Amino acid sequence: MLDKNEYIYGLRAVIEAIESGRDIDKVLVRKDLSGDLARDFFDVAHRYGVVLQRVPAERIDRITRRNHQGVLAIFSAVSYSSLDVLVPQLYEEGKLPFVVLLDGVTDVRNFGAIARTCECAGVDAIVIPERGGVGVNADAMKTSAGALNYLPVCREKSILGAVKFLKDNGYSIVSATEKGARNYAEGDYTGPVAVVMGAEDVGISPEILRLSDTLAAIPQLGNIGSLNVSVAAGVMIYEVVRQRLQTSRYE
Amino acid sequence: MLDKNEYIYGLRAVIEAIESGRDIDKVLVRKDLSGDLARDFFDVAHRYGVVLQRVPAERIDRITRRNHQGVLAIFSAVSYSSLDVLVPQLYEEGKLPFVVLLDGVTDVRNFGAIARTCECAGVDAIVIPERGGVGVNADAMKTSAGALNYLPVCREKSILGAVKFLKDNGYSIVSATEKGARNYAEGDYTGPVAVVMGAEDVGISPEILRLSDTLAAIPQLGNIGSLNVSVAAGVMIYEVVRQRLQTSRYE
Repeated sequence: MLDKNEYIYGLRAVIEAIESGRDIDKVLVRKDLSGDLARDFFDVAHRYGVVLQRVPAERIDRITRRNHQGVLAIFSAVSYSSLDVLVPQLYEEGKLPFVVLLDGVTDVRNFGAIARTCECAGVDAIVIPERGGVGVNADAMKTSAGALNYLPVCREKSILGAVKFLKDNGYSIVSATEKGARNYAEGDYTGPVAVVMGAEDVGISPEILRLSDTLAAIPQLGNIGSLNVSVAAGVMIYEVVRQRLQTSRYE
Repeated sequence: MLDKNEYIYGLRAVIEAIESGRDIDKVLVRKDLSGDLARDFFDVAHRYGVVLQRVPAERIDRITRRNHQGVLAIFSAVSYSSLDVLVPQLYEEGKLPFVVLLDGVTDVRNFGAIARTCECAGVDAIVIPERGGVGVNADAMKTSAGALNYLPVCREKSILGAVKFLKDNGYSIVSATEKGARNYAEGDYTGPVAVVMGAEDVGISPEILRLSDTLAAIPQLGNIGSLNVSVAAGVMIYEVVRQRLQTSRYE
């Protein structure tokens, strides 16, 4: 599944990869890992904020039969940005900001498709969570049709935290939800806007819905009543674009 | 690849399937098929307008090792409708018609995703060509999330012919194309409308573009400049819905 150049294993090699600034999706760590060098590894991982995932040794064995010493780092296909850096940057550039947040989207193909749409629509960044979301791997890159080479990806500790941060910075929080009382096209997206798309199954978490300025429902006029999340994202994202292009024509 | 209940083989069995009115995607026919019973088969196939595809015998052997006598009929996962029947029917029902035509979309998953969006958006029918398009098989059904159980699928001899027929019947032909000079959102879709989506690679054929009332371009504000066809279809289709819902509020 993973290609050989997508990961590195062994305590020293992983420590070096982290210290050299390689973008790491996560490090798989054998459950009972211990010893002096392991302590060094945990120190470095902690200092650099690397995401660790405790797994049975067999999980790592399935990726490589070599002597991995209980640690295997999976590289990210992209360099991550952070909202801390990006938000002031967009402000300084005088941009009308537009970010898209994924709350629990787990399907890599959906992620890639949404990233592709974001890039085409001039979205400034896509925000994913450190844990429980997608890994930005080679499959994601492929489905994105290369969009991930251009589109900043912010990986944040939590999407709820990111939503709060954006709201504090004057962004209007727009959650795409079937529970929304309002037709999505009736919202006003001509200011700084953060569009939240929810998980394929459970949708957006209640805490985020409560913080939202707009609960935007895409009309369902048929029997099945549920759009694919990447299509729903396309509809929402291009409604923002439509309104902004229209406004700029009338200014 | 094909499940056993998705096809039938042998000259008599296929003739009976056709005569009994089973919906057949196409019949694979061995290139050098001949003989009395084969003549009967060709007669029946011709009479019922069944799509035949000439193939080397090995192509059929790969699907079944049984004695297929050089013919194998692949069932369709849906019952096809026809624009001849559907257009007057929509008129009689007093509906404001909305159909979506696929000009050469060949990826079954894209077809399924577009069908799903059509069903959610209350589109009256999706139109595909007899040849050179997708097969409406079990994969399409699955990707459509069941939408193909509700959405009428019209399979027409040619999409160009279908476009002419719809234009003659007062439909506005809207082609989604990057070659369009006009922002898609500036078109007026509040009358009877037929939206044409093109093939993933080459887009919509020039003849159809020439017949179109609107060449609708979805703004591309990034570097990669090309949306996935099922996302583009979602954006186009929901712009029609948006305009119609807005109009009905103001009436």
